[in-house]
Amino acid sequence: MIRQRLSALLEEVAHGTKRPGDAIDELSTFAIEDLGFAKVDHARPALQGYPEVVFSEGKTTEQVEQICGALERENGSFLATRADGDVRAALQRRYPSIEVNDIARTAFLAPSQGLNPTGRGTIVVVSAGTSDLPVAEEAAVVARAMCNEVATVYDVGVAGIHRVLTNAPVLRGASVVIVVAGMDGALPSVVGGLVTVPVIAVPTSVGYGAAFGGVAALLAMLNSCAAGVTVVNIDNGFGAAAAAARINRGDA
Amino acid sequence: MIRQRLSALLEEVAHGTKRPGDAIDELSTFAIEDLGFAKVDHARPALQGYPEVVFSEGKTTEQVEQICGALERENGSFLATRADGDVRAALQRRYPSIEVNDIARTAFLAPSQGLNPTGRGTIVVVSAGTSDLPVAEEAAVVARAMCNEVATVYDVGVAGIHRVLTNAPVLRGASVVIVVAGMDGALPSVVGGLVTVPVIAVPTSVGYGAAFGGVAALLAMLNSCAAGVTVVNIDNGFGAAAAAARINRGDA
Amino acid sequence: MIRQRLSALLEEVAHGTKRPGDAIDELSTFAIEDLGFAKVDHARPALQGYPEVVFSEGKTTEQVEQICGALERENGSFLATRADGDVRAALQRRYPSIEVNDIARTAFLAPSQGLNPTGRGTIVVVSAGTSDLPVAEEAAVVARAMCNEVATVYDVGVAGIHRVLTNAPVLRGASVVIVVAGMDGALPSVVGGLVTVPVIAVPTSVGYGAAFGGVAALLAMLNSCAAGVTVVNIDNGFGAAAAAARINRGDA
Amino acid sequence: MIRQRLSALLEEVAHGTKRPGDAIDELSTFAIEDLGFAKVDHARPALQGYPEVVFSEGKTTEQVEQICGALERENGSFLATRADGDVRAALQRRYPSIEVNDIARTAFLAPSQGLNPTGRGTIVVVSAGTSDLPVAEEAAVVARAMCNEVATVYDVGVAGIHRVLTNAPVLRGASVVIVVAGMDGALPSVVGGLVTVPVIAVPTSVGYGAAFGGVAALLAMLNSCAAGVTVVNIDNGFGAAAAAARINRGDA
Amino acid sequence: MIRQRLSALLEEVAHGTKRPGDAIDELSTFAIEDLGFAKVDHARPALQGYPEVVFSEGKTTEQVEQICGALERENGSFLATRADGDVRAALQRRYPSIEVNDIARTAFLAPSQGLNPTGRGTIVVVSAGTSDLPVAEEAAVVARAMCNEVATVYDVGVAGIHRVLTNAPVLRGASVVIVVAGMDGALPSVVGGLVTVPVIAVPTSVGYGAAFGGVAALLAMLNSCAAGVTVVNIDNGFGAAAAAARINRGDA
Amino acid sequence: MIRQRLSALLEEVAHGTKRPGDAIDELSTFAIEDLGFAKVDHARPALQGYPEVVFSEGKTTEQVEQICGALERENGSFLATRADGDVRAALQRRYPSIEVNDIARTAFLAPSQGLNPTGRGTIVVVSAGTSDLPVAEEAAVVARAMCNEVATVYDVGVAGIHRVLTNAPVLRGASVVIVVAGMDGALPSVVGGLVTVPVIAVPTSVGYGAAFGGVAALLAMLNSCAAGVTVVNIDNGFGAAAAAARINRGDA
Amino acid sequence: MIRQRLSALLEEVAHGTKRPGDAIDELSTFAIEDLGFAKVDHARPALQGYPEVVFSEGKTTEQVEQICGALERENGSFLATRADGDVRAALQRRYPSIEVNDIARTAFLAPSQGLNPTGRGTIVVVSAGTSDLPVAEEAAVVARAMCNEVATVYDVGVAGIHRVLTNAPVLRGASVVIVVAGMDGALPSVVGGLVTVPVIAVPTSVGYGAAFGGVAALLAMLNSCAAGVTVVNIDNGFGAAAAAARINRGDA
Amino acid sequence: MIRQRLSALLEEVAHGTKRPGDAIDELSTFAIEDLGFAKVDHARPALQGYPEVVFSEGKTTEQVEQICGALERENGSFLATRADGDVRAALQRRYPSIEVNDIARTAFLAPSQGLNPTGRGTIVVVSAGTSDLPVAEEAAVVARAMCNEVATVYDVGVAGIHRVLTNAPVLRGASVVIVVAGMDGALPSVVGGLVTVPVIAVPTSVGYGAAFGGVAALLAMLNSCAAGVTVVNIDNGFGAAAAAARINRGDA
Repeated sequence: MIRQRLSALLEEVAHGTKRPGDAIDELSTFAIEDLGFAKVDHARPALQGYPEVVFSEGKTTEQVEQICGALERENGSFLATRADGDVRAALQRRYPSIEVNDIARTAFLAPSQGLNPTGRGTIVVVSAGTSDLPVAEEAAVVARAMCNEVATVYDVGVAGIHRVLTNAPVLRGASVVIVVAGMDGALPSVVGGLVTVPVIAVPTSVGYGAAFGGVAALLAMLNSCAAGVTVVNIDNGFGAAAAAARINRGDA
Repeated sequence: MIRQRLSALLEEVAHGTKRPGDAIDELSTFAIEDLGFAKVDHARPALQGYPEVVFSEGKTTEQVEQICGALERENGSFLATRADGDVRAALQRRYPSIEVNDIARTAFLAPSQGLNPTGRGTIVVVSAGTSDLPVAEEAAVVARAMCNEVATVYDVGVAGIHRVLTNAPVLRGASVVIVVAGMDGALPSVVGGLVTVPVIAVPTSVGYGAAFGGVAALLAMLNSCAAGVTVVNIDNGFGAAAAAARINRGDA
Repeated sequence: MIRQRLSALLEEVAHGTKRPGDAIDELSTFAIEDLGFAKVDHARPALQGYPEVVFSEGKTTEQVEQICGALERENGSFLATRADGDVRAALQRRYPSIEVNDIARTAFLAPSQGLNPTGRGTIVVVSAGTSDLPVAEEAAVVARAMCNEVATVYDVGVAGIHRVLTNAPVLRGASVVIVVAGMDGALPSVVGGLVTVPVIAVPTSVGYGAAFGGVAALLAMLNSCAAGVTVVNIDNGFGAAAAAARINRGDA
Repeated sequence: MIRQRLSALLEEVAHGTKRPGDAIDELSTFAIEDLGFAKVDHARPALQGYPEVVFSEGKTTEQVEQICGALERENGSFLATRADGDVRAALQRRYPSIEVNDIARTAFLAPSQGLNPTGRGTIVVVSAGTSDLPVAEEAAVVARAMCNEVATVYDVGVAGIHRVLTNAPVLRGASVVIVVAGMDGALPSVVGGLVTVPVIAVPTSVGYGAAFGGVAALLAMLNSCAAGVTVVNIDNGFGAAAAAARINRGDA
Repeated sequence: MIRQRLSALLEEVAHGTKRPGDAIDELSTFAIEDLGFAKVDHARPALQGYPEVVFSEGKTTEQVEQICGALERENGSFLATRADGDVRAALQRRYPSIEVNDIARTAFLAPSQGLNPTGRGTIVVVSAGTSDLPVAEEAAVVARAMCNEVATVYDVGVAGIHRVLTNAPVLRGASVVIVVAGMDGALPSVVGGLVTVPVIAVPTSVGYGAAFGGVAALLAMLNSCAAGVTVVNIDNGFGAAAAAARINRGDA
Repeated sequence: MIRQRLSALLEEVAHGTKRPGDAIDELSTFAIEDLGFAKVDHARPALQGYPEVVFSEGKTTEQVEQICGALERENGSFLATRADGDVRAALQRRYPSIEVNDIARTAFLAPSQGLNPTGRGTIVVVSAGTSDLPVAEEAAVVARAMCNEVATVYDVGVAGIHRVLTNAPVLRGASVVIVVAGMDGALPSVVGGLVTVPVIAVPTSVGYGAAFGGVAALLAMLNSCAAGVTVVNIDNGFGAAAAAARINRGDA
Repeated sequence: MIRQRLSALLEEVAHGTKRPGDAIDELSTFAIEDLGFAKVDHARPALQGYPEVVFSEGKTTEQVEQICGALERENGSFLATRADGDVRAALQRRYPSIEVNDIARTAFLAPSQGLNPTGRGTIVVVSAGTSDLPVAEEAAVVARAMCNEVATVYDVGVAGIHRVLTNAPVLRGASVVIVVAGMDGALPSVVGGLVTVPVIAVPTSVGYGAAFGGVAALLAMLNSCAAGVTVVNIDNGFGAAAAAARINRGDA
Repeated sequence: MIRQRLSALLEEVAHGTKRPGDAIDELSTFAIEDLGFAKVDHARPALQGYPEVVFSEGKTTEQVEQICGALERENGSFLATRADGDVRAALQRRYPSIEVNDIARTAFLAPSQGLNPTGRGTIVVVSAGTSDLPVAEEAAVVARAMCNEVATVYDVGVAGIHRVLTNAPVLRGASVVIVVAGMDGALPSVVGGLVTVPVIAVPTSVGYGAAFGGVAALLAMLNSCAAGVTVVNIDNGFGAAAAAARINRGDA
């Protein structure tokens, strides 16, 4: 039902009988399904052209299932992130065709019509070490689900600087680079100096002692000596991908 | 002399007799002027098409003058940021035509041929309160110097939510939004929900007590509930502008 | 026996044969039952007109049972908060009629005569996200047990600002608003600007990385740009409800 | 002119020809005067019945003068807080009748018709030590300017517990208590146990070493063992008074 | 054998044939038994007149057993603190007469000849809440094992100030007071004002959120407004008792 | 006048016509002189037998003068600590016979009858480096003013361990040792192992970088591997002396 | 195959037909085996003359097995550190001759030809307490695997200063000293004053409360009053050994 | 006189009539000159063969002058570090031949016979940015005064990675590398991967906001992904040089 009202509304916008601003206001309210513990926005996936993302951490398996169920019913797709083993298993039982990535801890129900990459270029995900993979993979999965081409370059920490330099051509072919690193968080500074496109740095909680769960890397990245590097929260592969997708959109 | 070698090199690239990658490597070394205390890169401004930025804090007035002098000699322009009263006065004495912004603490010697906005759209700088102005203005000055169209929306903190909402049309017309806020750092979350373009959040050191010199705002922004907001260092108006410029470039 | 002495004492106050101040001093000592590991105050629930609250965390199940048993014996009611599964089960076995709330982690033995809302108005509990529910529910349960009318508005984070605005009428009907939020802690600033009644902000430990277990939200709230917002400890739904109850009392 | 439009609007509300909610929305926009660096809200003082408060810290003397000037012109009154010597002197030169409090660092231009205490009871401001006076006085000045009766009890730190106990009758006569303390921040816990009305704790930056500029007191207050104590930012006498005023309003 | 050499050495000191300083140096080396992973000092318990204390945390059960075994063999007694369930069980199996305190997490093998209180007065251990008991009991057990008279006053937090005041006579009868408190850490300030003897404050990790594992209480205590309060590490009941024992010694 | 009432009261206690507890309660209130910004307790110096100490930091010169004046009038003596140059000069102008210590930043008006050391033994103040002197001297001045014998051992940091060992005999002759150290805060652990009397550690703000204004030393001291070391706030020479005086009292 | 190419390359260097710098660049790329999740460098162990070290924490058992397998195949040896029980068991099943150290959590497959100590002198590992052993042993195992002579001195904390002094001759015989300590981190300052060779301090996470997982020891060591002490990350026995090996190399 | 006793003592050692260990103990005490506020060790410079270093910060100009005077008298040389303008001027007035370095803030009175580099190789000091120069220069001055050959490579931050790579040959020629960097502290990780000799990282307080006075760089360096990098305190150029000198000594 929501989909129909949505179509009607967009028709009006298309025909100029409703101004875009008014449509946005209207959408903000009528398409929200209230599950009691959560308000699910069905307009957003339809408008943005890619599946809604459900952050699973801090929610019970039942809550995730209910939210994903509502999304599947209205939109035919969803992407669950930070989904632990229980959540991934529960979703897989219910949606056998779902794509589960155990390293990224994601479960993705792609739209039946498939994904259509609409971004302007390729998002390159770079990581410093093997332990950074869960975050790097989360970023890659989310960026793909948001209809972007994605390439990955893993385990190129700066202590072996030639590993980064060897991959400079791949980096220079990117429209956006996501750099994932824990410990000393030095990689974004080097990458930021090698490319002229936007660089999004993701600190990870990899390390121990004075790594302070990613704080060392976070601070290093906020103080990057390369101008124009921006930063997201520790381990926030999702956020980096969402920002990269905003940048890579054709209309941005 | 550097300019001539640079022109020759770029010619070769244009004629296909030198590969871009090789040119970049070559440029990385030959165009650097060593002042002893600093290595000035003359290739960068020529390549990127806008003036080099000199971060003045932590340098003596003499050092800033020498670096700016070298840049002026080779490129005819420069932008000094974080320039205190002494530095601004010294530069103004030497370059009477320089544009000084006392709030932004910048001194900008524009290229004689003027600036040519080449970005894809408008960078909108939004600030939460009056005290955030120095950082917001720094971002605006830098973004303009980097050849972007810039618009500003000031003093629209979320405690008077209608002030932001009233400006939603301006925000929605942006290609990138820079949001500058101290204290609770709440504005980027609201803005991030109102627009679909990239949002760069700049925490400021505005506030007292548990604001901890901008840490409260920084943390709030890193934890923004709006997906796709990225963050730069506290008071880093320059960095936000540099990142926005990367995003707004036509070729990104 | 304590109840009888208490009645006698209050009678004296009522008849003017004892001054209130003296009665308070007397009550402070004679009505305390010493369990060795805890001193249980039986005068307080009688005086304040609502059940005593037992904070269960850090106490053994046996200690909680003993304290609740003493309260039940003298006052006929109690409310256990931060009660883990074991504690809730143990209390339910002993008091089958007890109201258990698994999300709020509370076990409430209501007085046999029922609760009589005596507050001046309605306490509205607002939460930003689904994961904030345990704290929001704790606040709601405690506020109700303290004889207040309570209404709830859940999952209205500021990234979808229309969700808050749509609920403005409910908020404006409150006598006190409790705002529960983790991550960027931005919601109290927006709510504080929408209402003129007291706003109590409760940061939650929801989030990861630079959320630092609720510190990001706590700092944001302490620096709220809305004047007159006060704050309680991270996850302290109980404290917020207790403060709201103090405000909402008829005689305050 | 703004005053006239405001009167007209309120008339409509009074006559029922405009709903309060709509009036609020309208007020949110039309009564804002844009000074470029600040947006001054002229509706608020008129609506709330007491002078607008201007936080002077982080603003230039000229900016404070301009904002106060606009407020004086439209409303005939204002209260400048955190006003350093320069600001206080500048305002005093311009408004000779202004009330300056050097300890509280405030400059108050009272409305010509005087203040009319409209609160339900007395706000009592308690402080632990002599060095806490600037913050305590700020709270007292602001609370009075917001039309409340105010009483003060100073230098009653808990190391001499009888000093607090001796003042218990004054505390028990309050409708709200503001407790100002630095160092160990212990006073609110004791006061919170002595009274049943709302207690707002204000940590101060008084102390040295491990006082960490008020953090020790802030943490102690957030962890107060007295249920129902709420906290504001370090040194935030203004915020405490604003919250107390919200609580003490007749219609709350 | 060590005991015999020790006796001989002390005889020499007693007869004036060896200077005390030289004896101390000699003792520092010859009486140490090297277990490889630990160096056990057999001279200390003999000299100080009370059993050696073994801190069990961070050691394997086997290591604790070996150290205690060596102590029992040479001195006939020991006190294991921070002994988890495994360690307590292992020691109890081996020394059936051992006194185990499950709350204090101690296992004490008293000397066969019993303890002989040699301190000048009574050490009073005071605690703020029920959850502080493990630390308070550890302090009490250690102080007793170090040959002191000990009295305890539990659950007298400052939110019910009369609970402390009622116990003032006990406090004033102490030669040293150990005050154990978590959360706001306010109790030592009040006690410090009530007595003139030394007060040792022990912060506990009791609390949640902004209690930061005892940091809030630690900071409050370091900033106590009562002059002459000293502080030990968070949860360090042992250290407080050791310091109190030093103070309470007849020869101090 | 206060002195006379005090004498009378103490007479009653001496003759058994008033119980000590009642006398204390009475004293707690009647001997307090209210200066408005401060409540001066005239009973305390008379009772404790040594001059009252006025902490000058955070008070205006006028406030310090008024408090000292009141003390001089009633008790004939006082000790001002943390007295900056202005305060010291002002007091010296008014009381020419005052003893000023510029390193310790103290101004001491000794009682006309002189000081009578009443402690059980000698308080030894030890410091690690030259820069720790202001704090060490403050401790020494305060301890002397509180009627104790004091000895000092300066500049014996552990990097030259023989400097401490050479002074072991002095340390072993103490009844209490105050150890003052900044930077690594290692000295108290070594001293704590050399003596059996109480050791009070005072961290200083000496150092830079990761010394964090004394936090490094504070943490080291709280974690001292020598059992029975207690700690006071950073730079708190006064507090250490007050605690040492409590320990050294004949009646403790 | 990699080994053959490597031999050929080194031959060229030996014969002067290839410059060392060019060889290093070549080696940086061709000898890297890409496992997808990790890039294994086979040139490094061959060049440095000792086995490659695999940091196991944060990697799955399978990942560690694959990396170790690749190293064994090409180099015949490896050293796995931070290997938990699962990893150690898995490696032992596959390589029965492997040396497992349960305290150090290492698994070492020595080269078939054995190790040939090539360092200039002896690396001495000193530890303060029994709980520091895992880190000290990790350092010892790694240093030995890197072809150094190693001696150990354990449980010599500064509270019993004679324990360190007794071992001064061993310390003075070292070419490098690694000092491992938790809690107050005082040992490196004492050792640094006793020897003239390089001292590497390793803070451990041993302790509780204000030890903050090793931060107290880390800060103390960074502020060591002994000149020339350098520090590695908390619990980083590996890093200390690697640094010591760099120092102890004959060609350094 | 001290010099003569020292010579005699060393003669005895040389002739085998005194054991080195005994000589060290003797030296530890007899050669110390007690200035009251400082104990000056005259044996050390004689033994170590290079001038004593006086850390001037936190000492008064008079204290520095007295210590330097004592050193000049006995040893004929000294090096004052962290000497502010006043100290440098005072020393220059007294010792006209002194070498003053205004950037390094040092004043060096070289021995009349000159310095004789005795280290095994060259210490290379590398810095990331212009603002790091004061610390880098302090390291260079101290290392030279300690009789080492020193080379410098400045302004080679990793954002322009070719600047470091171009200087790889210089780095590879070092016996020790000192890397000085603020902000993101990334340079040591890159350098540590380029060389096999010891690398000492010095974080600087250069930067603002989340640089936290050098903490960001410090943490990054402690978490360096290059094995074998060790770290000293923020801005501790002296300490890095002292450690490098220990490593570079011929006998180490």
